[in-house]
Amino acid sequence: MPDQVIIAIDAMGGDFGPEVILPAAVRVLEKQDNVGIILVGDEAVLSAMAGQLNIDLAGAYAGRIEIQHASQIVEMHDEPALAIRKKKDSSMRVAINMVHEGRAQAVVSAGNTGALMGTAKFVLKTLPGIDRPAISTTIPSMTGHTHMLDLGANVDCSGENLYQFAIMGSVLAEAVDNVDRPRVGLLNIGSEAMKGNALVKEADALLADAPINYIGFVEGDDIYNGNVDVIVCDGFVGNVSLKTSEGVAKMISHFMKQEFTRNIYSKLAAMIAMPVLKAFRSRIDPRAYNGASMLGLSSIVIKSHGGADVFGFANAIKIAVLEVEKTVPQHIRARMESLLEKSL
Amino acid sequence: MPDQVIIAIDAMGGDFGPEVILPAAVRVLEKQDNVGIILVGDEAVLSAMAGQLNIDLAGAYAGRIEIQHASQIVEMHDEPALAIRKKKDSSMRVAINMVHEGRAQAVVSAGNTGALMGTAKFVLKTLPGIDRPAISTTIPSMTGHTHMLDLGANVDCSGENLYQFAIMGSVLAEAVDNVDRPRVGLLNIGSEAMKGNALVKEADALLADAPINYIGFVEGDDIYNGNVDVIVCDGFVGNVSLKTSEGVAKMISHFMKQEFTRNIYSKLAAMIAMPVLKAFRSRIDPRAYNGASMLGLSSIVIKSHGGADVFGFANAIKIAVLEVEKTVPQHIRARMESLLEKSL
Repeated sequence: MPDQVIIAIDAMGGDFGPEVILPAAVRVLEKQDNVGIILVGDEAVLSAMAGQLNIDLAGAYAGRIEIQHASQIVEMHDEPALAIRKKKDSSMRVAINMVHEGRAQAVVSAGNTGALMGTAKFVLKTLPGIDRPAISTTIPSMTGHTHMLDLGANVDCSGENLYQFAIMGSVLAEAVDNVDRPRVGLLNIGSEAMKGNALVKEADALLADAPINYIGFVEGDDIYNGNVDVIVCDGFVGNVSLKTSEGVAKMISHFMKQEFTRNIYSKLAAMIAMPVLKAFRSRIDPRAYNGASMLGLSSIVIKSHGGADVFGFANAIKIAVLEVEKTVPQHIRARMESLLEKSL
Repeated sequence: MPDQVIIAIDAMGGDFGPEVILPAAVRVLEKQDNVGIILVGDEAVLSAMAGQLNIDLAGAYAGRIEIQHASQIVEMHDEPALAIRKKKDSSMRVAINMVHEGRAQAVVSAGNTGALMGTAKFVLKTLPGIDRPAISTTIPSMTGHTHMLDLGANVDCSGENLYQFAIMGSVLAEAVDNVDRPRVGLLNIGSEAMKGNALVKEADALLADAPINYIGFVEGDDIYNGNVDVIVCDGFVGNVSLKTSEGVAKMISHFMKQEFTRNIYSKLAAMIAMPVLKAFRSRIDPRAYNGASMLGLSSIVIKSHGGADVFGFANAIKIAVLEVEKTVPQHIRARMESLLEKSL
């Protein structure tokens, strides 16, 4: 498949497995001519599911989609170490291997996050100058979107870790958004220099000299107000912040639904306002942001939410394709190498 | 003023000072017969503002409201140590002194959070068994509300600190909500015991034996879904989580406004849906939750948001009154003393 972007997909991962992943793959193939997909998983299961969904793998997308057999599955509760040692023929591991062997340029999985990160680190290795990879995602904001990292890969971080996350986030935003000198902020609890815990103070001191557009401390509400392009934090804070956001959004939807179904009048109002409410809902649709990047690895690894539907999983594949096209790991490698040279 | 609940108010604090605080005090006096208020601040300024707002302090509320002169003001950028040493006649300090002297049962301030906490600790002292006070607030949830602490008083915590926060939060929820054995959760990034940073693992081990209804780890979305009554975290995480929530809510409002003003049709829909939208908005009105408790001090100290309006500041006063009526510090003291006895 020359000139194509080849994505290896862990077709057995996530809450729904091939039932969601196959239609999502087809959806991407339909829309993007330059994409080829390798579905990794149990050949019999995948073929049967393709039949059941009336997807003709040898038909319309011949030459652009194929199945790579893998006999094992990493379960959601498997420890990363166990997945690495005991499940060498899992759909997740084989998909990662395909990237390592150059047969694909990126891997997408909705499986166990810890096992995916652990296996990817073990097989693909981290880039020079990166001590720990970080999980980064795109979050909607009032003016567009914000990149945020780390979202849970590293719960106990050093200032140096956050420094590396900031560099990676800056390179990512430059590459995928075509932004020059993206604004990078460090998540803190006040913009005054005196506030903050020991970790952010240490990271702030390091970032003052970083060759990026570091704008200093930002606060939780800056994730959403468009004041910053990249927000850096440790994985514990990032994960809490993201889950908190989901909770607020769900509660607001819940209250809105309650009010619009309270009585005859409000139901009528809901009917009339339906097109507006739909347009509104599509703007905060979390599925449109599904797909987190494991940055700092030698190749592209995208984690889909386990509960993603077809629309959501297709979005994760599209993010993988975009990062291949924009050569994100190569850019991070180049930046880290130039930093390492300077420090010699 | 016998049988009354007397609240000392730092009348010079916050972004708007007496212009907001005087009408808020009057609003509470109108609605709650048993409340008396001492306005602490510059006598000339307060009298002039009362005149300007047509508030007759000697009239309708005679005997229930008075002015206590204080010549200084703590500024928003003042360091706590400076406020304590150099501003002994500030409205904040004098209001706290009145509680210390037994002339009022609680203090409310919209001023500098660090100075308020520092001065309150210095004058009122912490309760036995409490190493550090924590800031707690009430947050709306799908089924009612959740108490969350700490929200920023302690950015670097130990497991023992979180343990004490959990006890205080449990006692607070029991007292003000009349709930028996409120569910107390520890904020983490996954409910599996293996996840989490060093701090939450340490706190979790301590809480396993705590004489409260400790339900284990909860996640960011549990703040809003009604699964838990009290959420415990360090001040850094709590503050980020709260600010993040504000950011999401503001973005959602912004998008909703944009969609409902996009064209003639959507504007018409907005007009028809207005009563429903208003009812919805009142359910997530942050002003209705204004007023954070500094728990762990010997007396009640309530911090209002600096930018609170009359409705919001009045709510902070009402929280102070409720905590006096429910004798919150006495309950925390009793619980801590019984814990200390057991550990001897």
